[in-house]
Amino acid sequence: MAKELKEMTKRADNYSQWYNDLVVKADLAEQSAVRGCMVIKPYGYAIWEKMQQQLDKMFKETGHVNAYFPLLIPKSFLSREAEHVEGFAKECAVVTHYRLRTNATHDGVEVDPSAKLEEELIIRPTSETIIWNTYKNWINSYRDLPILCNQWANVFRWEMRTRMFLRTAEFLWQEGHTAHATAEEAQEEAIKMLNVYADFAEKYMAVPVVKGVKSANERFAGALETYTIEAMMQDGKALQSGTSHFLGQNFAKAFDVKFLNRENQLEYVWASSWGVSTRLMGALIMTHSDDNGLVLPPHLAPIQVVIIPIYKNAEQLHAIREKVDPIVAELRKAGISVKFDDADNKRPGFKFADYELKGVPVRLVLGARDIENGTVEIMRRDTLEKHSAPLEGIAQYVEKLLEDIQENIYQNALKQRESMTREVNSYDEFKQEIEKGGFLLCHWDGTPETEEKIKEETKATIRCIPLDGDKTPGKCMVTGKPSAQRVIFARNY
Amino acid sequence: MAKELKEMTKRADNYSQWYNDLVVKADLAEQSAVRGCMVIKPYGYAIWEKMQQQLDKMFKETGHVNAYFPLLIPKSFLSREAEHVEGFAKECAVVTHYRLRTNATHDGVEVDPSAKLEEELIIRPTSETIIWNTYKNWINSYRDLPILCNQWANVFRWEMRTRMFLRTAEFLWQEGHTAHATAEEAQEEAIKMLNVYADFAEKYMAVPVVKGVKSANERFAGALETYTIEAMMQDGKALQSGTSHFLGQNFAKAFDVKFLNRENQLEYVWASSWGVSTRLMGALIMTHSDDNGLVLPPHLAPIQVVIIPIYKNAEQLHAIREKVDPIVAELRKAGISVKFDDADNKRPGFKFADYELKGVPVRLVLGARDIENGTVEIMRRDTLEKHSAPLEGIAQYVEKLLEDIQENIYQNALKQRESMTREVNSYDEFKQEIEKGGFLLCHWDGTPETEEKIKEETKATIRCIPLDGDKTPGKCMVTGKPSAQRVIFARNY
Repeated sequence: MAKELKEMTKRADNYSQWYNDLVVKADLAEQSAVRGCMVIKPYGYAIWEKMQQQLDKMFKETGHVNAYFPLLIPKSFLSREAEHVEGFAKECAVVTHYRLRTNATHDGVEVDPSAKLEEELIIRPTSETIIWNTYKNWINSYRDLPILCNQWANVFRWEMRTRMFLRTAEFLWQEGHTAHATAEEAQEEAIKMLNVYADFAEKYMAVPVVKGVKSANERFAGALETYTIEAMMQDGKALQSGTSHFLGQNFAKAFDVKFLNRENQLEYVWASSWGVSTRLMGALIMTHSDDNGLVLPPHLAPIQVVIIPIYKNAEQLHAIREKVDPIVAELRKAGISVKFDDADNKRPGFKFADYELKGVPVRLVLGARDIENGTVEIMRRDTLEKHSAPLEGIAQYVEKLLEDIQENIYQNALKQRESMTREVNSYDEFKQEIEKGGFLLCHWDGTPETEEKIKEETKATIRCIPLDGDKTPGKCMVTGKPSAQRVIFARNY
Repeated sequence: MAKELKEMTKRADNYSQWYNDLVVKADLAEQSAVRGCMVIKPYGYAIWEKMQQQLDKMFKETGHVNAYFPLLIPKSFLSREAEHVEGFAKECAVVTHYRLRTNATHDGVEVDPSAKLEEELIIRPTSETIIWNTYKNWINSYRDLPILCNQWANVFRWEMRTRMFLRTAEFLWQEGHTAHATAEEAQEEAIKMLNVYADFAEKYMAVPVVKGVKSANERFAGALETYTIEAMMQDGKALQSGTSHFLGQNFAKAFDVKFLNRENQLEYVWASSWGVSTRLMGALIMTHSDDNGLVLPPHLAPIQVVIIPIYKNAEQLHAIREKVDPIVAELRKAGISVKFDDADNKRPGFKFADYELKGVPVRLVLGARDIENGTVEIMRRDTLEKHSAPLEGIAQYVEKLLEDIQENIYQNALKQRESMTREVNSYDEFKQEIEKGGFLLCHWDGTPETEEKIKEETKATIRCIPLDGDKTPGKCMVTGKPSAQRVIFARNY
């Protein structure tokens, strides 16, 4: 592992390669035998599980329930909503047959041509269609509303260029699908879930995000409005980290879902949908980690504290363990996950490098002299600073340190983002500045044409029209036409 | 709902229809637009979530970690292991294309013939092949072993005759896949997980199970030995509820997974796999429920206690709420999920029937007179018995009652099974007895031919060769040849 660490690319040399190396070397994920699909390894999955648990709790606290809808969607469903089919039908996995048979040479299997489906089935790229087809049976009157369902599921989009966690053909996600009696309520729901996502990103992932609205070009296929949280990676590129959509009555109309309102009139149902995915793992990795490996926020680290004994013989190990056992018990009682690593087939130096690579927030090291002196060596992963502290009261000390680290990495990411966010007022300046990365706050005339031109010429897109902050109007940097407020341009993942 | 309840088939009239009605009317699941695939509705999913959480805890306590492997498997993988392909390649969903395009009449989409895959992909019916192909990269030496991974996932088998939860084309499950340095260790793992499943079934689902070994005919395709837990439903039919397999070196050989053992020699890795699925929901429903609806074991009930106020005006409701609030707080503190249903758009009688249908274990009813007298009316769902109890100390009383109900429904199921389990000594007697249902303990000569003959003539199969209990040898009821011990025959789901 120490050897592998040396082989890891430095961020300054090649940020993109550094990310790929890190995902593999920290045992988070690896490529599978299926093009564009990854294997999420146990350590990576443990982080995803912690994300899931926290998000699921937040969804339930805001009144949502979980359900499960079919993996496969009849082909015809996709074309019911005109924009949706444009956005999703193009790249999808199509099931055409339901049986294999032994081949003629008896050395393998082949598709049985007699087992062809009448209508092909699509592996869900997202579930609006199958869910709204189901909601039709659930909704008759305003008394059946709202419906506030979430689904944890795998989805599949046949992506041409994939990168682990950031863009994979199959990925894991949650998708909320809600049905409401009024447009206002559906809108409020979309905003509510945007806020849940932002809270989660900031308080658990320690990733600062900008909340905003997408421009028409970047809107979800079938939505009237798409809200987004946008994070900035260390290389200054944006990462869309979660989206929430106000779908209006589009899917209700496509699947004929009406309800009797309080005035006893039939009306189409109003909808929202919202999702975050294993892409969040990419955001987590790229925001905090360094050339030594992962840096995990304590609130999501599978192992929050590792304790490594330094000993020459069984007697010394025994003495250390006697000191360590009550500390471990106390930390666990406080809900902190601790690993005491006394494996004797690995040298301490190897362990140090390995837990650094894995991003364990706090490392405690105890040797014979520490036992004599009643001290312990503490290293915090975020700053790599080491210092000695008294064993007495160490559990409370570590508890506080974990919160300090959580806050510190958030503040670092925020400073980084602020230092790379600036106002740009002319298109010439924009073309220079965009090469340096970061978020550029610019006036834009609100047209898809201007946005498209900027994208073609600079590879930058509008990440969002921020909900908070400065709303001063101005003039479009490209066309000079009026602009309601500055929007965020950036290159993105 | 009260109306719907009346429409529910009685068990005595048609057990099979009763089950189908119950699944739909208790809001557990419904058929979807995709043949053989169900929608798991929020109430059904909440029960499955409680099962998942408990099983996941038990897996982790026994040293396992979660990971995630691809949904799609290259066709050629399936044929690597000779028996496995026979068992699984026949009925599977085959992905042949990766794109749709707008059709000629511009009113829909069609498969783009130019987007044909070079090698077809199969939606996983089970993941041994893709996982062992991955393990090849993870294993070099005995120091990399054991690998103890579990995956929570959806799988797909193109079943011709489906029933909700019991047999669906897509279902949710967990699949454990472990790799070991010795045959003994892999065997021990298979037995260990069988015991975990049996503990879960008995302590959480309140479903008594027989642990046993499958005959060769019923073995998992690719296994050397399959272990099973078999439950008996109220109609006397068996339900295979979980299986655990000792796979020997079959998959290691198929995917060339070798390791350097302690003697520095290359050897194939030993394997186990084990799984339970949403089929457990079927076992849960069919074991305990009655003509009034679901009966849920308290340990898995999403709502354990419902409190219904009977009131004529806001003042009375207020007085009831004042009494109820501290009880709710006390129960929740004890980890019990409570719902106080003061919805005023439904009559109490409607609520009573609805919570009975949903299987809520304990119902408390409080009216004005109860407040005066300091009492509460308690109904337990398992026996439908009502009685009055003092409000004072009600939380502890309910806590104990929940445990009583858990134990009582387990004992009822056990008595039912015992009353329908008997020894049968001749094939003539067998043919009569099998019509009455239940488990028949018979001597069998150990050959697939005899088992096949019995199956053809009576529709009964060997559910398992029990691990515990009487091991007295005897003579096969069909051929008279020697038999090592009695095995369990039954008709099954």
